[in-house]
Order: sequence, then C-alpha cells, then structure tokens
Amino acid sequence: MKQKRVLILGGGFAGLACAKGFPEERFAVTLVDRWNHHLFQPLLYQVATGGLAMTDIAQPLRSILSDYKNVTTLMDEVRSIDLDARQVHLKDHVLDYDYLVIAVGVKTGYFGHDDWAAHTLGLKSLDDAMVIRKKVLLAFEKAESSDDPQETARLMTMIIVGGGPTGVEMAGSLAELARQVLKGDFRRIDPSLTKVHLIEGGPKLLPSFPGALSDYTRARLEKLGVTVHLNTHVKEVGAGYVVTEDLRIESDIIIWAAGVEASGLTRTLAGVPLDRAGRIQVQPDLSLPGHPEVFAAGDLVALTDTKGVRVPGVSPAAIQMGHFIAKAIHHEGMTLPRTPFTYFDKGSMATIGRSAAVVSFAGMQIRGMLAWLMWLFVHLLFLMGMRNRLSVFLHWVWSYLTWQRGARIIQP
Amino acid sequence: MKQKRVLILGGGFAGLACAKGFPEERFAVTLVDRWNHHLFQPLLYQVATGGLAMTDIAQPLRSILSDYKNVTTLMDEVRSIDLDARQVHLKDHVLDYDYLVIAVGVKTGYFGHDDWAAHTLGLKSLDDAMVIRKKVLLAFEKAESSDDPQETARLMTMIIVGGGPTGVEMAGSLAELARQVLKGDFRRIDPSLTKVHLIEGGPKLLPSFPGALSDYTRARLEKLGVTVHLNTHVKEVGAGYVVTEDLRIESDIIIWAAGVEASGLTRTLAGVPLDRAGRIQVQPDLSLPGHPEVFAAGDLVALTDTKGVRVPGVSPAAIQMGHFIAKAIHHEGMTLPRTPFTYFDKGSMATIGRSAAVVSFAGMQIRGMLAWLMWLFVHLLFLMGMRNRLSVFLHWVWSYLTWQRGARIIQP
Repeated sequence: MKQKRVLILGGGFAGLACAKGFPEERFAVTLVDRWNHHLFQPLLYQVATGGLAMTDIAQPLRSILSDYKNVTTLMDEVRSIDLDARQVHLKDHVLDYDYLVIAVGVKTGYFGHDDWAAHTLGLKSLDDAMVIRKKVLLAFEKAESSDDPQETARLMTMIIVGGGPTGVEMAGSLAELARQVLKGDFRRIDPSLTKVHLIEGGPKLLPSFPGALSDYTRARLEKLGVTVHLNTHVKEVGAGYVVTEDLRIESDIIIWAAGVEASGLTRTLAGVPLDRAGRIQVQPDLSLPGHPEVFAAGDLVALTDTKGVRVPGVSPAAIQMGHFIAKAIHHEGMTLPRTPFTYFDKGSMATIGRSAAVVSFAGMQIRGMLAWLMWLFVHLLFLMGMRNRLSVFLHWVWSYLTWQRGARIIQP
Repeated sequence: MKQKRVLILGGGFAGLACAKGFPEERFAVTLVDRWNHHLFQPLLYQVATGGLAMTDIAQPLRSILSDYKNVTTLMDEVRSIDLDARQVHLKDHVLDYDYLVIAVGVKTGYFGHDDWAAHTLGLKSLDDAMVIRKKVLLAFEKAESSDDPQETARLMTMIIVGGGPTGVEMAGSLAELARQVLKGDFRRIDPSLTKVHLIEGGPKLLPSFPGALSDYTRARLEKLGVTVHLNTHVKEVGAGYVVTEDLRIESDIIIWAAGVEASGLTRTLAGVPLDRAGRIQVQPDLSLPGHPEVFAAGDLVALTDTKGVRVPGVSPAAIQMGHFIAKAIHHEGMTLPRTPFTYFDKGSMATIGRSAAVVSFAGMQIRGMLAWLMWLFVHLLFLMGMRNRLSVFLHWVWSYLTWQRGARIIQP
C-alpha cells in the first residue's frame, strides 16, 4: 500500500496536534513552519512584560517531534497553494501532497485601518512580544533619564486597545510591572505613576465571559491602577496618539489587541469561501468545499458546529481540530462518511495580574486566587501532556513565581 | 561635608563591584551603561549554543542595585571624557564628577585586520551570542532543507579561531550540540557529521594553563569530534572561508575568539598611556597618570602588579579591582598614601562540554567531572554572593542540566 503524504502548514497548536496523530509508517508527514518553534501563545503577554523569557514559552518543533520518525519538520515559507495540482509552493521547495492541512493561523487585524499598523504593536508572535518588551523597558529608562516632566509623563503612559483576554492580561501584567516589580529600581521617577489605559468598544471587558466575571475583572484591573474605558471606540491612531469619541491620549506604546484576521494565504485560495476577516468557511468536517483532501484547522477557520456553537479561535479548539483531522484522514477509504466536528468547550480563563484570574467553565464562575490556581493547574496538565515537559514546567513555574528579572533586559 | 560624586562608566564585573562599595550617604554614585543589564560573560558561550537563554545570564542593573539608595543607574552612552573639566559627555547628559571609574571593557580585536570583522562573529555581548545562535540553528535548518550535498557539508562546517578558554568552551559546546542534543531531531541530515574546527596559533590550547591540562583538553575536544589545529595562524579571512598556513576551510560561521582590544573610548583620553591593544597603562593604584581622581578597572586595564603578576582580563580580577577602587576612594583625605593593587589569583577554569572541565588553582590541577563540579560550585558561590540570587541560580542550574531546549528557537 502506497505511503500517503500528509502535508501540514503551520506548527502552532492545530498543526502540531495534527502532526502527532500519525504514528503509522503508512503516512509520511511533513510539517512546515516559517520559524522553527512551537509557540505557547497564551503566555506571550508574559514575555511582553518581562515576566518570562521567550525560551520559556517556545520549543523547537523538531525537538517536540523528535520521536515521531515518520514526521519531517521543514523550516520554510508558503508562497502559494495549487489545489488542482495538489502542490504547495514554498520559498525553497515544491511539495506534493495526498492530504493538506492548512493551519497557518492569524495575524493582527485592524478592521480595514491597515495604516494603523505602523503606529501600533501587535501581540501574535515572539517578535511582537520582544518588540513590546523592549519599548516598555526603554520607556522607563528614558523617563528616568529625562529632565522634561511632560516627556516623562508621556513615556509613562501606555495604551492597550481591546478588552478581550489578551488585552486584559496585558493590562494587568503591565500595571503590575510598573507598580510592583520596578518599584525600588528607579531614583528620579516613580514607576507606580504609570498610566495604563485599556480601551474596549463593547459594554464590558471579556465579552465572551459571564457579566459578573467581567465586572470583577474591571474592578481588579482598576485596583491595579489600570484606567478602563468601556463603550469606547478608537476613531484615529497616529504616531504617538490615539483618539476615541471623548479623548485624545498621547503615548508611544499603543498595543493593538482588538482584532485578528487570517493569514494572507487564505485570500490566495481560488474559489474558497472566506468570512470578512479572511477565515476559511470550512465544511462541517473541516475540509474545504470541493476539496475533501484539504483541511483547515486552528484560528483561521470560521465554523459554527452542528451544535450551533461558533468555534472560537482559542488553543483548545485548535488542538481538537488538529486531532479531528488526523482521525478523519485515518478513516479514509472506509465506507463510513466523515463525521462533523464538534467543539468541546473546556471553558475560558484569563489572568489579572499574578494573584487573580477568572474562570468560566461548565456554567461555573470562579474568580480570585482559586481561579488563578486552576489556571496554573490547567497549564500544568497541558504541558505535562507533552513529552518530557516536567522540566519545562518547573522551569516555567519558577520563573513565573520569581518574576524572573533576567527577562527585563534590553539589547539591540 | 559635601557629598562626593562618584561616576562609574560600565556595568560589568568591575563597575558593578565598585558601585556596591559605597553604602554611605556621603557618596552620590552614578553608574552608566549603554544597556540596562549586567552580563555574566563567562556563560555567553552557553547562550550562543542554545544551552541557556539570555535571560539566564543577564540581570537588570537597577534591580541588582535596587537597595543601594545612593546609587543611580543611568542607561546612556559615553561620548567623551574631559579630564581637565572633570566632566563626562554622554549621549543625553553631561555629568560632573569628583571621582571617575572607567570600566567600559573590551571588544573583539583583530590584530589590525579590522576588515576581518565583517566576515566573522565575536562573542563579547548578548547580541553577539544571539547572532551566533541564530546562524548556527539556521545552518542546521538549511542543511536539512538542502538537496545539494556540497552545500550541506559547508553548512555543517564551523570554525572557531582562538584556543583560549572562550574558544575551547565554544568548541566543546558546539560539538555537543551537534552530536548529542540535535541527534534525533533531523531526518535528512546527520548532525553528528558536523565539523567543528578550533584554530590556535600557539603550541597548546589554554595557553595560560599548565601543559598537562592543555593536553587533556585537546584530547577531550577531539573525542567530542572537534578538529584541533595547533601552531596554526590565520592568514586570511573572507566571506565564507578561512586560510591558514596549510588549509583553506569553507564555512559561513567563523567565530573569532582570538583577541580583544579595549573600547575605543580609551584612545580619546588625551595624554593617557595605552598598550598596543588600547588598554590603559594605569598607576599601581589603578589611577590614571596625572589624574589621581580617575581610575580604570576591568579588562581594559594593562597592569603588572607589584608582585610581578600581569593582571589577566578575567572576572575575578575585574571584581577585585572594583572593590579596591571603592576602598581607595573611601580613604581619600586620610594621610596614608594609596596602597598598590595586587591580584589574588583565584585560579582558572574552563569547561569542555557538559561533563568535563579543567581547573588550575594554587598549583593544583584538576580535570574531568570533579573539575566540572568545582566549576559549578564556584558559580554557585558567586551567584549566591549577589542579593536574592538563589532563585536565579536554581533556575540556571535547571536550564543547564536539561539543556533547556527553548533556547534553541529561531526568530527574526
């Protein structure tokens, strides 16, 4: 029986989960990623605020897949996909496939205002996080060095647009960095005077969470010194300022956590239906319409499952999709039709600083330190599920608890 | 009594040790560094080979000095020093001083062949280490991806010039990375076929160590797969090749660990005697001739002490000099003349891979695993001596023992 070639584009949660689903020799799997690492995105905000090192949240893909002898990891960039010829053109290779899994993810989206990208900072990749970190740390250094009170006030003002989990976690972490971690380190400035603004267009933070948890989150953030603006829309973004309906805020650090759009790759797929953000509108079995051998997984998928649930762009969903596709490919050739994908909502979590969180799960709402411990526990389980990860986890916990100061270094 | 202003340029071992020597309010100390961190340089080679993260070996200066309330840390660059006016011109400030300590260190030196800098990689800063790391990891990725056996062989050839501790440690670590760490991760290439060349102009590796330890080091390195070239001088370095008396070796990774020269700042000091590498020829009390209020410390100092010992450019010497200068400044105004600096040789160490080392101390020579444990112990003591460093140390030990895979990530 001829070996089936499975080509997976993207080494994130979806792609990696899928790649691990082919232990049999009859599959030759190739995983392509334009970088060499798998990134634990939920903790990117930690790297952006110097709480963790980038090496704490990224692992080389080929190391993770080291034992999967029929999986080849390739570091390359996708140029185009020829659905008819069943070929993918990469920068350095052309690869044929029997099955294709598109899991290249999303990038920061500006709802059509792409010019705002030049003045803002996204938080989707390691590079993004490192850029934010450097800007934030440099801002404090320059403020310490400055003799101009106006410049100092401006340097110590930071804006986050978007009140979902990313924005909330970023805001809490940034406020804590300023008020608690950097406290004794400066002589001329008082870092606790830093103004962190969190701007959300809707009526509450964490829109997908129950209202009581949203209120709690707002109260905790305000206690940490964050200025929360609800029902506030950004009208204009320029070099060093943001304009809302009511305000103009001057800052050189404007973090955009308000939207995402699918990788530009999706728009190159001829005849494939996309939603407004470029996400692929897949069939119920996650395949592309008209191309049953091509699947999409992860946050670039737009799907409402058969239970009527709109599948969110979160890591548990991505992992479930990856597993599902691996199973579907295994069952090819059997007489049964493919089953549709259903999303099992494992709940949502968001941290607010280092000693509080909110958890919404199976109708339960948990908050505070208990929620934070649950958050920690879930991460333990997740990381333990990966081979040889106990050491990574302990390393990570230790860094986290001691707010590894080393992560607050500035270099070119 | 008027507060004395002590200005320290450089946050390395010497500058930091000096800054910590002024607990009294009658001194106002300013420490200036062009970056914000203190770097544990002896472990740079670990970062360069992905064994440790940069955050494991760097700590923010202002955190280290947080409790020293009369010490102000400033992130700025030195432009020039006006010895007559007792002023230092930085990029953003002009600072007056009563005492000045120049501890800005050295950079990679090419013995006059400055054009070789464009084709080689130094290992003196975090940025240097990150550049090497990225090139090394990318080389393996490209080799895995390549269909050309000649290109693959070239990508898997690496050259280190300089057989002192830096070169030896780099060579051992690189060879181990290729042969042990990356072993199962690739499918098309065999990383253990990597050729690591170590080129030394003298008759033995580790010139400052006893001959028996040099021989042992060579044998261990060769066992790790390193090709050692002794009595070999580099005649020419170009883009992608090195020419010695006998050989031409093609490689895109040429690491220069063969020489250092003092920071360019020293050449701007009018009337101050320098050696051929730009180091300041200080008085026996570490002050500049004709300027008793100006001191120099660290590896940019050229001094043979009163015991006839030429003070080496190593961290224990730098720390001793920093302490010495702080004491000398304290004793100003007393009727006693200044005592001269004497170097207490705490011995030398070098690691060869992760399970062997050589230690030369007080006439004793130790090798192998015992030496490696001593090396570990000394580092523990050193790090423990710094405030709150137990967490850093444990974190570091853990990373080191598990060859923290996360450090092997490639990003822009």
